[in-house]
Amino acid sequence: MTEVKGFRFATAEAAIKAPGRKDCALILSDTPAACAGVFTRNKVIAAPLIVSKPRIAAGRCQAVLINSGNANACTGEPGLEAARRSSAALAELLGVDEDLVAVSSTGVIGVQLPVDRLTRALPALCAELATDKATAVAEAIMTTDSFRKVSSRELSLGGVSCRVLALAKGAGMIHPNMATMLGFVMTDAAVAPQLLQPVLNQAVNGSFNSITVDGDTSTNDMVLMMANGAAGNAQVQPGTPEAEQFACAVDEVLLDLAKMIVRDGEGATKLVQILVQGACDAQQARIAARSVATSSLVKTAFFGEDANWGRIIAAVGYSGVEVNPDVIDIFFDDVQVVADGLSTGPQREAVATQVLKQPEFRVTVDLKLGEGSAYYYTSDLTYDYVKINADYRT
Amino acid sequence: MTEVKGFRFATAEAAIKAPGRKDCALILSDTPAACAGVFTRNKVIAAPLIVSKPRIAAGRCQAVLINSGNANACTGEPGLEAARRSSAALAELLGVDEDLVAVSSTGVIGVQLPVDRLTRALPALCAELATDKATAVAEAIMTTDSFRKVSSRELSLGGVSCRVLALAKGAGMIHPNMATMLGFVMTDAAVAPQLLQPVLNQAVNGSFNSITVDGDTSTNDMVLMMANGAAGNAQVQPGTPEAEQFACAVDEVLLDLAKMIVRDGEGATKLVQILVQGACDAQQARIAARSVATSSLVKTAFFGEDANWGRIIAAVGYSGVEVNPDVIDIFFDDVQVVADGLSTGPQREAVATQVLKQPEFRVTVDLKLGEGSAYYYTSDLTYDYVKINADYRT
Repeated sequence: MTEVKGFRFATAEAAIKAPGRKDCALILSDTPAACAGVFTRNKVIAAPLIVSKPRIAAGRCQAVLINSGNANACTGEPGLEAARRSSAALAELLGVDEDLVAVSSTGVIGVQLPVDRLTRALPALCAELATDKATAVAEAIMTTDSFRKVSSRELSLGGVSCRVLALAKGAGMIHPNMATMLGFVMTDAAVAPQLLQPVLNQAVNGSFNSITVDGDTSTNDMVLMMANGAAGNAQVQPGTPEAEQFACAVDEVLLDLAKMIVRDGEGATKLVQILVQGACDAQQARIAARSVATSSLVKTAFFGEDANWGRIIAAVGYSGVEVNPDVIDIFFDDVQVVADGLSTGPQREAVATQVLKQPEFRVTVDLKLGEGSAYYYTSDLTYDYVKINADYRT
Repeated sequence: MTEVKGFRFATAEAAIKAPGRKDCALILSDTPAACAGVFTRNKVIAAPLIVSKPRIAAGRCQAVLINSGNANACTGEPGLEAARRSSAALAELLGVDEDLVAVSSTGVIGVQLPVDRLTRALPALCAELATDKATAVAEAIMTTDSFRKVSSRELSLGGVSCRVLALAKGAGMIHPNMATMLGFVMTDAAVAPQLLQPVLNQAVNGSFNSITVDGDTSTNDMVLMMANGAAGNAQVQPGTPEAEQFACAVDEVLLDLAKMIVRDGEGATKLVQILVQGACDAQQARIAARSVATSSLVKTAFFGEDANWGRIIAAVGYSGVEVNPDVIDIFFDDVQVVADGLSTGPQREAVATQVLKQPEFRVTVDLKLGEGSAYYYTSDLTYDYVKINADYRT
């Protein structure tokens, strides 16, 4: 399912990337949609975010212009001007209010956006608009991604069939607070505007903010959700079962995309869930899970398919959370390798090594101190990660 | 200069590592020395540290027993017993008080220390004691190190020649708070005991706590300083020029060793100083420098010899410190690539690329907000880092 009522999509070549590569995309709602957004917490913020944030904060959005190949970050006043010019040109072409246009960029930092090329491509882009081109958009916004990322759910809200469709890009620099990560969620459900932001926040926390590839956070990250009501359902109100259903669907599509991003982590060969339970509280569990998920030593051990739990216990230990080393349990999937802080022996470790040979598995760390639990998804750290990132601009 | 009056050194094979490898070492002062120590802040603490910390805190130490090949960490009560037994056996052989013996271990986590083998090796170890074997100790304590790390200074204190000799091991897991890092500082200067801990703290902050290879912190780190007064100088008192001279010498030897550790970072080919200046205060400068120094994306760009300042500015931006992106300057050695937040152009970047081809260079980030400055030393992230750490236990 890659169509959502009342949304159209388009892609084009603006010659920002090399010839033959689609590098700009458009998402258009037939009518102004209610919207919500989550943005990078990096203090260095790219021009398109500076332009789009207040527009999205106003709560309505109709069109999103996205380019890949150039982040329009660290580009100063000319960069801001470029973001404004491209959104103004698109608004004029579409005949919509400029404040209803969001712009989004991803790619190299510190190089001026070739805005003339981008605006010249806009008529072709608008001419391409069609209901069935969401996957093409997912492809055009890729940078180091090796596959496009699309997820969707259908759900019945008050007896009316509604859809949630989400696209994302992101492979390197993926870390909480979303690093070089763009996400777009389109729904044809009618949803009370005040419900959108909390639903998006919760879904982002459980997905894009619970993954890590390399711990960096970019200047350009954003997740934008638009709800245009084209499905014709009665508007979903806060505190109702429908609100719960809708939030679940958004949670699910974003978690799908987040896992795809980790799986596509630069050079990654493994998708690993780090589950910390038994922490004093959920916040402590999250800090400990993140510490394990971001440890280069843990991640290289995953690549080496080495059940090296010493590195895991060390990463928990230096995370700063409350721990009692003498009670910790550690499992690889269901295989326990540490019981009360001690090795369960070489035989169990040999079995655990088989778990690590899988492309996906879970590491559970039970601190046995309280009720707090949290997860992170991470990848292994591989030769190819180094290769891709050493050569990115060359 | 690798001798210090009143200190003797020895190494032996205890069959903890593979046959033919020295894996235990002894440092002995002829008389009880004043001492100070700095220890890992990991909450999971290895058995030898649990045993040694209170002894060193008592302010006097005469002998240090070190083994490589086994960290004696996550080994529970049997591990503690092993640490105590080996130190008791050594104390008896040497005829010194057990409280004057410190023990230190490095190697694999979670495997019981073969304490019988270690104690059986002690007579041979004591028989080897000699004044000129400090470099042999530096070699015996290596794990993934590719070269031994020794530094020394001679200085005149009140007209008397004194010596400071320091040994260290550490290559992987090097990060502030010292990860799998052992350091031993021996001086024959007489120094007021209350001076030793502050001098060591300051020297560690400017050296081992200002380097990073991969951001992990181990369960076993310690730096131990011993001053036995064998040089015969008048005891150095706090607040005197001699105290300043002595502190300088300790700062220098530890910085020497810290830079060797980064240069020997697993798979590293570059030694890079990240200097942040113009921060609001020194603490903010330190946080920003650390953020840049630990970024996997920055470190792979160094490996790729890519003057990718966008990653540097992004790492400063997500560090959380006060920044104004529109005034930041960035230099590679003396080549300015960013002026007031904007690229200085492709020509300057091409010159900067030449800087990155050197084995050592400096990145200066000037935030232009205040007087705070701090540095970090880091390495590049390479194929070999992944290889070494993926294969460590196999």
